[in-house]
Amino acid sequence: MEFTVSFFSFELDPALAADPVFDLHRRGKMTMSATIPLASRDDLSLAYTPGVARVCEAIAEDESLYPDYTWTANTVAVVTDGSAVLGLGNIGPKAAMPVMEGKAILFKQFGGVDSIPICLDTQDVEGIIATVKAMAPSFGGINLEDISAPRCFEIERRLDAELDIPVFHDDQHGTAVVTLAALRNAAALLGRTFADLRVVVSGAGAAGAAITNTLIAAGVQGANMIVVDSRGIIHGERGALGGMKAELAATTNISGRTGGITEALIGADVLVGVSGGTIAEEALAGMAPGAIIFALANPTPEVLPAVAHKYAAIVATGRSDFPNQINNVLAFPGIFRGALDVRASTITAGMKVAAADAIAAIVADELRPEAIVPSPLDPRVAPAVAAAVAAAAVRDGVARRLPAAAPVQVRQTV
Amino acid sequence: MEFTVSFFSFELDPALAADPVFDLHRRGKMTMSATIPLASRDDLSLAYTPGVARVCEAIAEDESLYPDYTWTANTVAVVTDGSAVLGLGNIGPKAAMPVMEGKAILFKQFGGVDSIPICLDTQDVEGIIATVKAMAPSFGGINLEDISAPRCFEIERRLDAELDIPVFHDDQHGTAVVTLAALRNAAALLGRTFADLRVVVSGAGAAGAAITNTLIAAGVQGANMIVVDSRGIIHGERGALGGMKAELAATTNISGRTGGITEALIGADVLVGVSGGTIAEEALAGMAPGAIIFALANPTPEVLPAVAHKYAAIVATGRSDFPNQINNVLAFPGIFRGALDVRASTITAGMKVAAADAIAAIVADELRPEAIVPSPLDPRVAPAVAAAVAAAAVRDGVARRLPAAAPVQVRQTV
Repeated sequence: MEFTVSFFSFELDPALAADPVFDLHRRGKMTMSATIPLASRDDLSLAYTPGVARVCEAIAEDESLYPDYTWTANTVAVVTDGSAVLGLGNIGPKAAMPVMEGKAILFKQFGGVDSIPICLDTQDVEGIIATVKAMAPSFGGINLEDISAPRCFEIERRLDAELDIPVFHDDQHGTAVVTLAALRNAAALLGRTFADLRVVVSGAGAAGAAITNTLIAAGVQGANMIVVDSRGIIHGERGALGGMKAELAATTNISGRTGGITEALIGADVLVGVSGGTIAEEALAGMAPGAIIFALANPTPEVLPAVAHKYAAIVATGRSDFPNQINNVLAFPGIFRGALDVRASTITAGMKVAAADAIAAIVADELRPEAIVPSPLDPRVAPAVAAAVAAAAVRDGVARRLPAAAPVQVRQTV
Repeated sequence: MEFTVSFFSFELDPALAADPVFDLHRRGKMTMSATIPLASRDDLSLAYTPGVARVCEAIAEDESLYPDYTWTANTVAVVTDGSAVLGLGNIGPKAAMPVMEGKAILFKQFGGVDSIPICLDTQDVEGIIATVKAMAPSFGGINLEDISAPRCFEIERRLDAELDIPVFHDDQHGTAVVTLAALRNAAALLGRTFADLRVVVSGAGAAGAAITNTLIAAGVQGANMIVVDSRGIIHGERGALGGMKAELAATTNISGRTGGITEALIGADVLVGVSGGTIAEEALAGMAPGAIIFALANPTPEVLPAVAHKYAAIVATGRSDFPNQINNVLAFPGIFRGALDVRASTITAGMKVAAADAIAAIVADELRPEAIVPSPLDPRVAPAVAAAVAAAAVRDGVARRLPAAAPVQVRQTV
């Protein structure tokens, strides 16, 4: 059916209307649509009353039918409170929406996952948890986004424990997964033994904590890792450490090194910067020969690649205009695709490591120092990540549906 | 970009998979998609980082830009707690989802409104209010659906007062608007003066209360209306009336008539049944000659049309297989289209009456006793309702954007 709707039109600020970025974002970046016909009375009576009542009754009788007969099994909420948006800080839920819409369409583009941006009018931990729990039946997964540390740790932990669908804070785990993928390939290219790498993580926020935990889960020795925050090296004797930082103090830096980033980097093989600050060139000089430097702060890396290359054999950043872009879009679409496909109840450490290994494997046969991760636009990534994550979910016992013997190829135009 | 995603496939219950209704609802009835390209690095850098940051900063600085540069201005949440779904009762949030998806796609089909089903895992009044308030920044309007009386009254009243976007409980007001439209045309066809109609409403739930209030707002004398619930006629001397029923006792039945539906109908010109029960033929015999009977219970009308026609000149039901279907889909898409177009802060009684009059006007020149309302598929309805509602919002001072001098025709394929 085609018809003409009479909309009103409005005047936009002429300066903004003429700006290509604002023009692109006008009226937002996404839409929803029906997947079934609604053109005839028969269509209506099947899709809506009275036909729909039979589907409702069947689900009321057997809740296991819910994912099969609603859109929820393929739908993820992208939830933020706007407290830590990009590098912009606490700009609130409305100013965060353009990022959440962007995230939602990337989910669809690369993973075929329907995704809805939910920007919350509360920054209270209990309020966020209660709201997400209340709306959870509407979704097959929850992607937390741009929620500031340390609140993000408690929110994710509680929601993951209390909900039976996957809960994933992308700023933590998406970044950690792609960082692990890049580090696997960097180590392989340089002929290093992954488990022996001495790794310094600069930044103990959401990304820094998750990178540390994920690298340990993947085989790096916690004893050989050092985490540095704005006050210096985290160690067991430092006072007033709470929550996640206390956990990091317990699992890393077993020799009890103290000092700042310069002391931390002495003899280090790897620097992962997720601090948002800058790191002086002098500090890098203490690293072991042929080091690996990932300077992931956006838009300004902790150290620019030209400087980093003086001390490192392999350099990566978060930016698209330098080689080796560590971008979460390599991870989250495929991770949720895989988790949703087997109706995983959670996303385990094993699923994250499997995702990273799948990303790394895409380019394993064509490794170069300036190509240790695939392009964010590489169409091979998400399907490979999805398959690896689904298999890991089955292995870890959190899959609620086993994959069929042979995967079905679905052609998807996006 | 086109690529192949490797999904897993699953076995469905063979009996359900072969059923056309279940086959239609498989994997749900809706999807979301991007409205902008995401095929190149340039696309990503405009739509996502770093370009998106400029849009975020502009909104953080001037919140009035929010509706212009996000999808929220055209997006409505369809919110339920699953407590009063169709005629199925309290089947819970998951079993309610197929209805909410159906509602969402009707919003898009007829009003061009993006709509997201939100099924809540709480039936607590305060919990529902807190959850909807927390998620409200994500939407341009809230459509409450299938929430049982009397909780629905408090929930709608509080949310409408505390949010600056339209809140509309469709089971109340959608039904009331279409009923008013039908009654306008029935009265015109029979040459009756609308203000003099003696109206009996059978049922004092969500729909009954709203129909009564809307008819009074449209000119029917409250003194000449009688509302009947399961315990009989509502009147001022009846004990233990709380909330909405106490309000109805104060505004209707000024003569203080008592008894049941039979006593209520003596001399009545109009019966509106929204009770879900049945009404005996004997009770109808007392109505005034040439009466109007709307028996709206679904799927079984309070009285079947063949019986009603013995006592009434005009009969309507809620069913598609009888003439004169009173269906909410005539109202809600156009009401929200119009409210969103002028960014109304609420939906006033005047906007509801304007919507009803616009629906009635569509068929005013071609009235027949079996055609007092347009077909639910009539493409003229939603644009006419939208224009009338937008104009009424401006008149009532709740529009936050004035319409441009000339409406713009937007061609929409659905």
